[in-house]
Amino acid sequence: MAENSGNTVIGVDIGGTNTVFGIVDNFGNILLEDSFRTQETNGPEEFFSRLCQGIISLIEKADGAKPLGIGIGSPNGNYYKGTVEYPPNLKWDIVDVVGEIKKYLDLPVVVTNDANAAAIGEMKYGSAKGMKNFILITLGTGLGSGIVVNGEVAYGAYGFAGEIGHMTAIENGRSCGCGRKGCLETYASAPGLSRTAFELFQKQNDNIELRSLKMEDISSKKVYELAESGEALAIEAFDYTGKILGKKLGDAVAVTEPEAIILFGGLARAGDWILKPTQKALDDAVLPIFKNKVKVKPSGLQERNIAILGAAALIFHDLK
Amino acid sequence: MAENSGNTVIGVDIGGTNTVFGIVDNFGNILLEDSFRTQETNGPEEFFSRLCQGIISLIEKADGAKPLGIGIGSPNGNYYKGTVEYPPNLKWDIVDVVGEIKKYLDLPVVVTNDANAAAIGEMKYGSAKGMKNFILITLGTGLGSGIVVNGEVAYGAYGFAGEIGHMTAIENGRSCGCGRKGCLETYASAPGLSRTAFELFQKQNDNIELRSLKMEDISSKKVYELAESGEALAIEAFDYTGKILGKKLGDAVAVTEPEAIILFGGLARAGDWILKPTQKALDDAVLPIFKNKVKVKPSGLQERNIAILGAAALIFHDLK
Repeated sequence: MAENSGNTVIGVDIGGTNTVFGIVDNFGNILLEDSFRTQETNGPEEFFSRLCQGIISLIEKADGAKPLGIGIGSPNGNYYKGTVEYPPNLKWDIVDVVGEIKKYLDLPVVVTNDANAAAIGEMKYGSAKGMKNFILITLGTGLGSGIVVNGEVAYGAYGFAGEIGHMTAIENGRSCGCGRKGCLETYASAPGLSRTAFELFQKQNDNIELRSLKMEDISSKKVYELAESGEALAIEAFDYTGKILGKKLGDAVAVTEPEAIILFGGLARAGDWILKPTQKALDDAVLPIFKNKVKVKPSGLQERNIAILGAAALIFHDLK
Repeated sequence: MAENSGNTVIGVDIGGTNTVFGIVDNFGNILLEDSFRTQETNGPEEFFSRLCQGIISLIEKADGAKPLGIGIGSPNGNYYKGTVEYPPNLKWDIVDVVGEIKKYLDLPVVVTNDANAAAIGEMKYGSAKGMKNFILITLGTGLGSGIVVNGEVAYGAYGFAGEIGHMTAIENGRSCGCGRKGCLETYASAPGLSRTAFELFQKQNDNIELRSLKMEDISSKKVYELAESGEALAIEAFDYTGKILGKKLGDAVAVTEPEAIILFGGLARAGDWILKPTQKALDDAVLPIFKNKVKVKPSGLQERNIAILGAAALIFHDLK
């Protein structure tokens, strides 16, 4: 194991499926970790009781040394209020996360959404080390974003900054879960890529096998495998996705001028299939002063660790 | 005269036509000011010699007390480098502003572009007092913007953040001075409004007087006067302009979630004619969580003072 600074924190990632948590040191080593299925707990009170028992067990298993604090990344986590509000996939309404934790543990607690936590994780341990201005994009079921300006996460006036997934990419485009149309995430996300591939497969005449696939059979992983095998339509689906993503990121670049845009999540695992068309569309879309300056990069962290490391980096950052 | 805190700074606004500068106290009182025609000086060396002589004279005229520093707002001013680079309307290339000033005055010097300076001015003295997240939009010959995040101006990775005027508003729209098409400032600016009014006037059949106007005869002031007199096409021109501006500002809101968007400059003087359609289009464009939250407001400063006060607030802010 790498050097341990002696100062540790707890990083927690509340996910729709699993909740993972661990003891993390200042160098990004996860010293101990554990997890449980989020849905197995009945409501937020039971959830936080279980989480805190788990954290207390981890601390005892380590050497009993008190961690400096707890960082929590969660869908719809609000930094200012210390709450999680109506998280998708969980039947919670507004939960006072800081209050729930304080029932069991007397430690500083900070909450934010998962994309903001990932951004801080990249800044402390990953691809954004040393950067003070960058954008982190998560390409999964939706498109999340964490915006870092002057070395700090932009939380916004009320804690809801970073909704790049809901910038309008195509006027009157695809219907979005938010109730509007043409949002970027209806194109640039795992389901967005699947839909694009499905539409392309439907339109062609030669390959009956592809044409007969249902949308639910076309995962982003499947599109990736088809692209790797040389299937032109799958490559076209990535190109189309990257083109829309890069063009719209150009608008975000005009606002905050990041040094880099870091992609992670299911769709980002496709590597150059998505990175290259995104970079090209971005460079085509922006002012001459931004051209070939803003790099589209993959995450510098192992995907399974990003969530815990991001949450840990969040509390390290705030304690500074 | 209002109370003078005793601590003063010099605020300088380098304009394409006039350069104005003054001694400003912590409460936003301009104690003394002077100006000269920028173009009357032959190149940057002569310009800065004249400017510094003017500043030295002002200090002597006051009580000789040494100001704390000098803040400078200039088109294409770069905060990180302390330079002004290829400013429009001036035949300068890259000028080391801090170096030029230091030849004459031993004071801290900070440079930024005029929109960033105005944003800091609004934060210290104007409509954005107490706000930590807002966007300042200048609607003049072009569209400039200053983005404030967590109480600090977003200068970006290289000093070029805040190019909202060059976000793409209309796909393949009007040609922009930057070489691209459909940039927001080709619609939302004084010349943009003039063009919109001209196009609307051309299309109608009844009013020969309006139809015969050349574009150069249709200033934004003229469109304002026509709207005030009840001319429906002039009102429509404002509505169209506000609709494009508000919709596009919705994209910027998705990035940084400002508490307010403050408009100033020639076109903003039209008041509700531009503010109301902009607010409506913004509220129509954004996610439900942002609706009716982000206020579109006029500047809280007298227009003739914004430039000096912004530059003064810049150096006050940096000295803190």
